[in-house]
Amino acid sequence: MTPYAPGLNLSPIMSFLDHIRACNNGDPSRYRPFLIGGRRVGFLRPAFAELLRSFPDIFQVGTDRVTLSPDLSGPDERSAAVADVGRRLVAAGILPKPRGESLRVAEGWGAPTLMVLERKFISYFGVAAYGVHVNGFVRTARGLSLWIGTRAQDKDVAPGKLDNMIAGGLPAGLGLMDNLVKEAGEEADVPQALARTARPAGIVSYVMEDEGGLKPDTLFVYDLEVPEDFTPRNTDGETAFFTLMDVSEVARRVRDSRDFKFNVTLVITDFLIRHGLLSPETEPDYAEIACGLRRSLPAR
Amino acid sequence: MTPYAPGLNLSPIMSFLDHIRACNNGDPSRYRPFLIGGRRVGFLRPAFAELLRSFPDIFQVGTDRVTLSPDLSGPDERSAAVADVGRRLVAAGILPKPRGESLRVAEGWGAPTLMVLERKFISYFGVAAYGVHVNGFVRTARGLSLWIGTRAQDKDVAPGKLDNMIAGGLPAGLGLMDNLVKEAGEEADVPQALARTARPAGIVSYVMEDEGGLKPDTLFVYDLEVPEDFTPRNTDGETAFFTLMDVSEVARRVRDSRDFKFNVTLVITDFLIRHGLLSPETEPDYAEIACGLRRSLPAR
Repeated sequence: MTPYAPGLNLSPIMSFLDHIRACNNGDPSRYRPFLIGGRRVGFLRPAFAELLRSFPDIFQVGTDRVTLSPDLSGPDERSAAVADVGRRLVAAGILPKPRGESLRVAEGWGAPTLMVLERKFISYFGVAAYGVHVNGFVRTARGLSLWIGTRAQDKDVAPGKLDNMIAGGLPAGLGLMDNLVKEAGEEADVPQALARTARPAGIVSYVMEDEGGLKPDTLFVYDLEVPEDFTPRNTDGETAFFTLMDVSEVARRVRDSRDFKFNVTLVITDFLIRHGLLSPETEPDYAEIACGLRRSLPAR
Repeated sequence: MTPYAPGLNLSPIMSFLDHIRACNNGDPSRYRPFLIGGRRVGFLRPAFAELLRSFPDIFQVGTDRVTLSPDLSGPDERSAAVADVGRRLVAAGILPKPRGESLRVAEGWGAPTLMVLERKFISYFGVAAYGVHVNGFVRTARGLSLWIGTRAQDKDVAPGKLDNMIAGGLPAGLGLMDNLVKEAGEEADVPQALARTARPAGIVSYVMEDEGGLKPDTLFVYDLEVPEDFTPRNTDGETAFFTLMDVSEVARRVRDSRDFKFNVTLVITDFLIRHGLLSPETEPDYAEIACGLRRSLPAR
């Protein structure tokens, strides 16, 4: 029960809001909603929507929305039809080569699966993707420290950048905790029993734009307290090495540099807020930061 | 380091989302933005905006916005001019009787004060209000318990409803922690030294509508762990009594009843999420709930 010492003493170079804005460069109003069975599941760039007029049996392309044909009656039939269109658009050089990993398409987390879609195509269809990020931390006499990974130089996305101890996308069909335990083992050599003590602590969401289109991402955030004598060790080659950093050092580098992977800055900002390490009395943007960490899309 | 047992075992009657929706019945698109010095500080109901045409020296009333006269050069002059209009509208039976308590009007938390406004008028001008809510909790061998207050029967707002251990609006000119310490003493007889161990843990925000107009509220959320032998005791007559409740009982009553004051349901839902007591694996609306706890207004 030590009195709360408001905030960390940081000299501002950048703002936490700068990182939030960088992750929210997508503007859904410039896209056409994509519907399946009357439910909005994505957003299409108008130029990509127009291309889909070549497949009138599969897509009903309007100027205000694109609807998957209601003749496709269930998830399997829809997935197969869209995968077939995908193959033709890959052959035509319009869509990128698939990775062979499918994501669930639904109206929201917890809503029924309407179809599955190749991961490499999701931004073209503006379909929401989900991930799991785990803040691995140690409680020491001097305060909290975080285990921070440095991403391997050969990663496609953000090579060499700093990352959470454990993080990964959610493939279709694998539960959150099962995914967390699997990634914890591969990425940081965390024993199963320890990984299962991770606690869900909320979400972080943002809407980016990439070369394909809109990328609405939702990250399920977990905190995992590890003992002082535990050291993470990468086993899958995705992380070059791990460093144990004081939370004040982490906060400084998150805010004032681009050393961290873009979306990890948001996960750690959320950690700082939840653990009382940012203060509304010393951080003028506190309310805007807290709101900015969770961006939701218009319902229709 | 016990394995995480996903979620509490609750049989659903209502949804956490029902309470979030009830607090978000306000639709800013049906209001006219209210600007001071080019900055959006509020929202006016069109009928109220039209009334302000009677004061052309003070308000420039347009069909798409209402602007405070730029001839009013600083916070003091603006506050005095609007207070004078307020007195006339109270005399005309249009505005309610003032309480004699002023709130800061600004573009956002941490932005410079543009004027102050009587608390009873704020929804007519759609100006954001801020509050402090403190989750008072005890860590026991069986898990977390929360100290829950029952509001006095003679309260104007939500008499007899359940409430956080400490909660209050933020008057102009008092800092967050100073306000928290003052309210903690008056509402729950918390010693200063204990009150100062409260940790900021984020915000909850929502946009309601009342008889006056729009009410955008931001609540700064704090967690205060109290020792098992501490018992809160009300000293200002605002709380009838306090009860120590298991967190699972609190969760059940928050979700499945209207026993709690409307906005306290959101503060406690946020507590459940932050402490890992709701699981994204068992709560299908998890992402929507987490996003719904923080609603922000359009910037202009």
